[in-house]
Amino acid sequence: MDGKSFDVGIIGGDGKMGSFLKKAFEKEHTVYVSDKESKLSNVDLVKKCNVIIVSVPIRETVSVIEEISPHLTEDHLLLDVCSLKEKPCRAMAKTKAHVVGMHPMFAPSCGSMENQTVVLCPLKETPRLSCMKGFFESAHARVVVTTPENHDKMMGIIQCLTHFISIVYVLTMKNLDVEIKELVDYASPVYLIELLMSGRILAQDKSLYTDIQMQNPKSPEVLKAFSEATLFLETLVKEGNVDGFEKTFEELSNYLGPLKKTASEVSSELVKVVNNKKETILKSAK
Amino acid sequence: MDGKSFDVGIIGGDGKMGSFLKKAFEKEHTVYVSDKESKLSNVDLVKKCNVIIVSVPIRETVSVIEEISPHLTEDHLLLDVCSLKEKPCRAMAKTKAHVVGMHPMFAPSCGSMENQTVVLCPLKETPRLSCMKGFFESAHARVVVTTPENHDKMMGIIQCLTHFISIVYVLTMKNLDVEIKELVDYASPVYLIELLMSGRILAQDKSLYTDIQMQNPKSPEVLKAFSEATLFLETLVKEGNVDGFEKTFEELSNYLGPLKKTASEVSSELVKVVNNKKETILKSAK
Repeated sequence: MDGKSFDVGIIGGDGKMGSFLKKAFEKEHTVYVSDKESKLSNVDLVKKCNVIIVSVPIRETVSVIEEISPHLTEDHLLLDVCSLKEKPCRAMAKTKAHVVGMHPMFAPSCGSMENQTVVLCPLKETPRLSCMKGFFESAHARVVVTTPENHDKMMGIIQCLTHFISIVYVLTMKNLDVEIKELVDYASPVYLIELLMSGRILAQDKSLYTDIQMQNPKSPEVLKAFSEATLFLETLVKEGNVDGFEKTFEELSNYLGPLKKTASEVSSELVKVVNNKKETILKSAK
Repeated sequence: MDGKSFDVGIIGGDGKMGSFLKKAFEKEHTVYVSDKESKLSNVDLVKKCNVIIVSVPIRETVSVIEEISPHLTEDHLLLDVCSLKEKPCRAMAKTKAHVVGMHPMFAPSCGSMENQTVVLCPLKETPRLSCMKGFFESAHARVVVTTPENHDKMMGIIQCLTHFISIVYVLTMKNLDVEIKELVDYASPVYLIELLMSGRILAQDKSLYTDIQMQNPKSPEVLKAFSEATLFLETLVKEGNVDGFEKTFEELSNYLGPLKKTASEVSSELVKVVNNKKETILKSAK
């Protein structure tokens, strides 16, 4: 199959990521799909295609892999799209197939893979990795190759921590009994951007975001570090410890290093976008 | 002075916000400045000008107001630019001048006031408010009029909470001993935006951000609500309480209401900006 056109079977191909991948692979390959309403079953797909992509909700991934496992051969390349890699990769490694765990680091709503990152976790040293890498790179995506363990460690921060903060942010406002409408009236651009990023997450599928928190083995450790850091800074403020707060601020500023300059510049571009949409944001905050 | 050109004196006029306001007022009025290096003293300025703007760091605002207080008359209009309003307004209210507490809700680096919000807190029911309101509105800023107390309550969330979260976010990553460089390699657009917004804050003046936390009377209450919300959600994750987490997610989603749709749309614009700058961001993360 390397370098040539091949038959791709997407399990869960009617879902958002499934449809996105279908469109992407269809440009060069033949794509078949199975889903709740499809004529083809998951096992039909495995018998028909030499590349199988499991694109189902996190909590269903392992059981779908187990369902198709007996039908996979050494001629198959098996991939998943799960936001977590340790558990699905462990399940996929038990099959006879070549295995490349995959995590597209973007929402399908982005429309294109250009500039987006795709993480690949090859198992059993498969030569099929270069084929997949080539496919994504030709769509101008950035491919990062790592182990399932390291992937999940990074996602403990990039996903668990980042989403968690957005959710706690909105929970705090709700618990303080403040109306978003009033807050938006006084908002700074920085506040509006944080609010929009939280809204982006809370507009999506609750089970996806719950699974990301619950199923990542690194999540408890990262959230513990977060609540300890919260308590540390809260105490500095409560005690009016100006020197301590300024010292921490400076240390963190140094930790970010040259990124700060880029952050100032790029965030000013983000501020411009939000300012241009201010009327729309104000109107939709009720 | 109403409706006509007047002499504006900016105390701290060489600072970032001072220079920004100087440029804005100079278009229609004569502006004089006092600062550490200026020929004119603060008191000279009060004697020369009928509009006085105190544009100095938060922790110096009240003492500067007290310094000029004996020289202010009922012909003066006195304003400040402090991010907090209760304390400076209380000090300004003791003078003979007309008083309008002011808070420009943007960084001077924005370059223009267009679409930006300016909060005004008139005291002693001054007729001079309409003059100031007109000035900012003619520069296409949005003017919100409220009391100093309500202003500080809103800032407890818009500033204290929002900045606090950005700082805790970076502190957590640092405490977990992860290199930003590696994280950025795997980053999703949502993570990059959060990181850039934190970097934007940590690139700025530590004393400004420390004062915002320490001097707002509402800050301890808001941070307490935040650490309680953190603990609540952390416990749900630790206990693997899927139903509880999903229920909270759904409640918060409802709390945001129609804003979520706008959030999804506008945040997609933000994602585009970040994707276009991805190479620059990657290079500057060391």
